[in-house]
Amino acid sequence: MTTAALVDQIRKKKSFLTVGLDTDLDKIPKHLLAEEDPIFAFNKAIIDATHDLCVGYKPNIAFYEAYGLKGWKSLEKTINYLNDNHPEQFTIADAKRGDIGNTSTRYAKAFFEELAFDSITIAPYMGKDSVEPFLRFREKHTILLALTSNKGAFDFQTKAVDGQELYKKVLETSKTYEGSENLMYVVGATKAEYLTDIRNIIPYAFLLVPGVGAQGGSLEEVCKYGMTKDVGLLVNSSRGIIYKSDKEDFAQAARTAAKDLQSQMEAILNR
Amino acid sequence: MTTAALVDQIRKKKSFLTVGLDTDLDKIPKHLLAEEDPIFAFNKAIIDATHDLCVGYKPNIAFYEAYGLKGWKSLEKTINYLNDNHPEQFTIADAKRGDIGNTSTRYAKAFFEELAFDSITIAPYMGKDSVEPFLRFREKHTILLALTSNKGAFDFQTKAVDGQELYKKVLETSKTYEGSENLMYVVGATKAEYLTDIRNIIPYAFLLVPGVGAQGGSLEEVCKYGMTKDVGLLVNSSRGIIYKSDKEDFAQAARTAAKDLQSQMEAILNR
Repeated sequence: MTTAALVDQIRKKKSFLTVGLDTDLDKIPKHLLAEEDPIFAFNKAIIDATHDLCVGYKPNIAFYEAYGLKGWKSLEKTINYLNDNHPEQFTIADAKRGDIGNTSTRYAKAFFEELAFDSITIAPYMGKDSVEPFLRFREKHTILLALTSNKGAFDFQTKAVDGQELYKKVLETSKTYEGSENLMYVVGATKAEYLTDIRNIIPYAFLLVPGVGAQGGSLEEVCKYGMTKDVGLLVNSSRGIIYKSDKEDFAQAARTAAKDLQSQMEAILNR
Repeated sequence: MTTAALVDQIRKKKSFLTVGLDTDLDKIPKHLLAEEDPIFAFNKAIIDATHDLCVGYKPNIAFYEAYGLKGWKSLEKTINYLNDNHPEQFTIADAKRGDIGNTSTRYAKAFFEELAFDSITIAPYMGKDSVEPFLRFREKHTILLALTSNKGAFDFQTKAVDGQELYKKVLETSKTYEGSENLMYVVGATKAEYLTDIRNIIPYAFLLVPGVGAQGGSLEEVCKYGMTKDVGLLVNSSRGIIYKSDKEDFAQAARTAAKDLQSQMEAILNR
């Protein structure tokens, strides 16, 4: 999917929400456990109930890998369901991968070809040749971890490297990578005060922003400091939407939570 | 597996070699493609031919994920084969994972419980709460990327952070993590000259050293600067062993290459 098509979808739906499919058998409604594939059944119900309110879905791959083969199968069914029924959705494999060149190419094939996601999250620690294999897929997007929403972000990401914080060094350096026009970045909503500095370095790139809601980030703050003329934001909510209810009404409850965020986004976009 | 058991195996076999199972359908002998599961058939033959010469096996997970469900199945069969038939082998999931706390726990379950690996490689970018969930598995080992063997390592890892290189900051900081006694570190053989400084920070921890052979690193140099009184090194070779021949004799050729490295290791250990 091109960035233009994504922006178009955001304008039409008045939403820059992505829904995180962090599907956990211990948290989904008990009645779904009788299904042949409870994880897929849950995801399908959430997608059916929310797709007009959001512009993308972000399964965190850890939740699927934790169930081994069975989990991988549920992930495959989920991405196929999205691509077959909602091809307008921007799909994000939240995988946080990264390895030396020929190995990164393998991960790129896994998520861009085998599973046909539109994008993948990547850890920057191994540098240029670990990122560029993903950027070679020109119709796809590579979302680099910059400043994450967790406490551990302060261990290294905010430490000064050559006079600037490591996450800024990552932003600056990544702009020199071949294919960098397909880069997006992860910036946690819990660190909205950093967004002015971030926009000085990458004025236009899309940011994937987790941490609104459950983790305490503010949508208003994120938009105030991070929004561009093409919006430039994908704000993700996972637990705050998908686990609103653990009863039969879970999909409706997810829709209500998604609608609430979408309405706030619409108000901001209409200003 | 305890570190003591690993050291014991190294002493018995006079080897600190691990074999990288980076199994690629484009590179394995053509006759294996007729097998029901060519990847597993290849791995099994390599394991059968080399297990007395090495102390561990390291499948790089990217190579399996690239084949989707089928690849995941081959990985599962490979780790089960190892655990059932060669429980003395130290198994390494070269996965380079890392995510926020509750999500890292999912990855830990995937590789330590679902697949029952002894260890996993982890990227440090997200800090403490992304690493500690792995360290909570006390019988397992977490292998943190420190200084990798690729060129991109110079993008961030060797940049000065608060007056010391980032990889050193990673080493220092990780020592304060709860459960840090189960940490090992990845240090590329192509950067052996850094090993003296590394040993000043982590005098005893085991290092997983890729990059000997195909990538140009020297075993002598690695041992000169990195070896401890308990050896403290796992030197990995992947392509240099498993792809020595693409004919019917591939397993024998892998054995010869492994034997060559093991003999060099034995000579070093006997000094």
